[in-house]
Amino acid sequence: MTLPLNPAMQATFLPPVMEARRWLDGVVFPADRPLINVSQAAPVDPPPLALRQEIARAALEDPAAHLYGPVLGLPALRAEVAAQWSASYGGMVAAEQVAITQGCNQAFCAVMATLAGAGDEVILPTPWYFNHKMWLDMQGVKAVPLATGDGLVPDPEAAARLIGPRSRAIVLVSPNNPGGVEYPAEVLRGFYDLAQARGLALIVDETYRDFDSRSGAVHDLFTDPDWAGTLIQLYSFSKAYRLTGHRVGAITASAARLTEVEKFLDTVAICPSQLGQIAALWGMRNLGDWVAGERLEILARRAAMVQGFSRLEGWRLLGCGAYFAYVEHPHPLPSPEFARALVREAGVLLLPGTMFMPAEDPAGARQLRIAFANVDAAGIGALFDRLEWLTF
Amino acid sequence: MTLPLNPAMQATFLPPVMEARRWLDGVVFPADRPLINVSQAAPVDPPPLALRQEIARAALEDPAAHLYGPVLGLPALRAEVAAQWSASYGGMVAAEQVAITQGCNQAFCAVMATLAGAGDEVILPTPWYFNHKMWLDMQGVKAVPLATGDGLVPDPEAAARLIGPRSRAIVLVSPNNPGGVEYPAEVLRGFYDLAQARGLALIVDETYRDFDSRSGAVHDLFTDPDWAGTLIQLYSFSKAYRLTGHRVGAITASAARLTEVEKFLDTVAICPSQLGQIAALWGMRNLGDWVAGERLEILARRAAMVQGFSRLEGWRLLGCGAYFAYVEHPHPLPSPEFARALVREAGVLLLPGTMFMPAEDPAGARQLRIAFANVDAAGIGALFDRLEWLTF
Repeated sequence: MTLPLNPAMQATFLPPVMEARRWLDGVVFPADRPLINVSQAAPVDPPPLALRQEIARAALEDPAAHLYGPVLGLPALRAEVAAQWSASYGGMVAAEQVAITQGCNQAFCAVMATLAGAGDEVILPTPWYFNHKMWLDMQGVKAVPLATGDGLVPDPEAAARLIGPRSRAIVLVSPNNPGGVEYPAEVLRGFYDLAQARGLALIVDETYRDFDSRSGAVHDLFTDPDWAGTLIQLYSFSKAYRLTGHRVGAITASAARLTEVEKFLDTVAICPSQLGQIAALWGMRNLGDWVAGERLEILARRAAMVQGFSRLEGWRLLGCGAYFAYVEHPHPLPSPEFARALVREAGVLLLPGTMFMPAEDPAGARQLRIAFANVDAAGIGALFDRLEWLTF
Repeated sequence: MTLPLNPAMQATFLPPVMEARRWLDGVVFPADRPLINVSQAAPVDPPPLALRQEIARAALEDPAAHLYGPVLGLPALRAEVAAQWSASYGGMVAAEQVAITQGCNQAFCAVMATLAGAGDEVILPTPWYFNHKMWLDMQGVKAVPLATGDGLVPDPEAAARLIGPRSRAIVLVSPNNPGGVEYPAEVLRGFYDLAQARGLALIVDETYRDFDSRSGAVHDLFTDPDWAGTLIQLYSFSKAYRLTGHRVGAITASAARLTEVEKFLDTVAICPSQLGQIAALWGMRNLGDWVAGERLEILARRAAMVQGFSRLEGWRLLGCGAYFAYVEHPHPLPSPEFARALVREAGVLLLPGTMFMPAEDPAGARQLRIAFANVDAAGIGALFDRLEWLTF
């Protein structure tokens, strides 16, 4: 007799990044051609010394850093997010409209748990972020794919045609993971108006907002005095401050929604890591200039990616921004097999488009995601040398 | 038009500890009668200095402490848990049978997500741990209450009568939260045999194992070479090492189960806090004697609680152990109102039994949970003075 297994859990796929990591097993990378790992969207260096010193200081001197805090996060951090969002989006966000979570993945799960249960539907543009799809799968919620075509920018009118009686939310990620595209303000506004008109939640995941190439407010949604009636924004402190190992994210939503979110977070988290929150708060208050420099470096790498693909025959760059290039490859192998071949033959680890696409969409087999933000100019040069060598 | 709200989320209750904290709003506690807070099971002091120094060292010197780690946790910590469990339970636990989570609440949710979905049933002895009930509620899983009577120890034969076609698991917490009772080894064995015979999972939450009054192995379940076919054990590093603010827990289960758990943890957590894991590992390797001293102190407080209630007329101590005394009170008010009166009239914050009981069970209105572990001998003396004053 075997133990029960929830069929909804069985139905979803294995974690893609962990699966890709297993492709490295048994592969030897020669010293003159080390692995180039562009599979995961994560800094590879630790936070700046001053931030590490602040974490160490809190660990030694602040007893509260080791004890339970409020379920929805440290009040000072909630207030700081509210103040900075109010300023940068030109809107009005209050501290009680901000909750802190154990990372932005958890922010998504917490919000979605308040919106949709088994049998409900949620619209996700494709290519989608796989963990969004996995949460919906394991909750028995149907992910309704919204195809975006070669431009990777979703169309509100196409989304409108997918809304049915069980629809609960539309989820956008901008700058996009995996697509790298920055959604124009008018596209976000179009989705906002649609969601508002149809009584759906609009979730906008802005994990990569700090690396957007545009200056000023990238959308005007928070300027609507009633934004909290429609909009739920998600954020991650992991990328801007290199805090991936601390797991700190944020939800900005109506206070009423956060009362429901609090039930989820109390049950799943109790509270976010206190040291992670202390680090995020210190970063927000002190690392503005440093993050601005990080952004410029990533934008320079992005330019190198654009230039590299412009010279690589047969490849098409569909989107490039934030941490990601999303490309169509010319190789005859479908992308999952081509990705494995890239590990063995070129020492490059990246994720195939099939990991971001519904099984029934053939586009995924021609696409790849390259998380280039970790790789410096020399590494990007080496990456293109290897892709060129392999493809022809 | 209002935004969608998942009815399963709406159906569950607000986080009890946060709700109780709101009872303090506007109440002034005179300097000579400060608040005695026995509402939450949490240390109030930080970890010992050597452990804080280790966290600070890692923050400064170990780049990996700030970056993503494996979804199922640091290999060295998984191996350490496996080795210590193998030794202390006299069984065989392998590192790949251990997963690290963002706290023990998340361990429960992750495991339960792999076992039960909407429409399934799970058996919980009452009084239950409220976050277990909340997770089941918000997932649409039916919590089937197993009454334990005055002894608070559940009976496997009574549980057998509650098993139906949708039953997926039985959940035990020992030492028990909120009941304080330590389940005898033969009771755990009886539940194990029942679960094995009926193809259910037996989840045993041993968050408070380090404070069990008994010496040696408190159950023999891990000695069965096939334990992983039935048993799922949960653990928390929060209590033993005073790491509540770091959120680190563990699951011990079959490697196949952990492959499913990994999907959940990847989606909800990505990885546990790295600093928290580093702290837990250092604690396991270096703080054995210190934890032994902590246990003796808590056992002394427990003895003071037992003695105090033996002198308090009209009260009945139903269970006392781990961090908790679970009592029947003599006051005419039902426990939710009595608990609020205790805040105002006696400066004592504790949780009413109704927070741990199904609404239809009248016993909760006569019961209270006292989380005494934070309160030293003087504080316990003051607590009984106030209860005595108030009751008569």
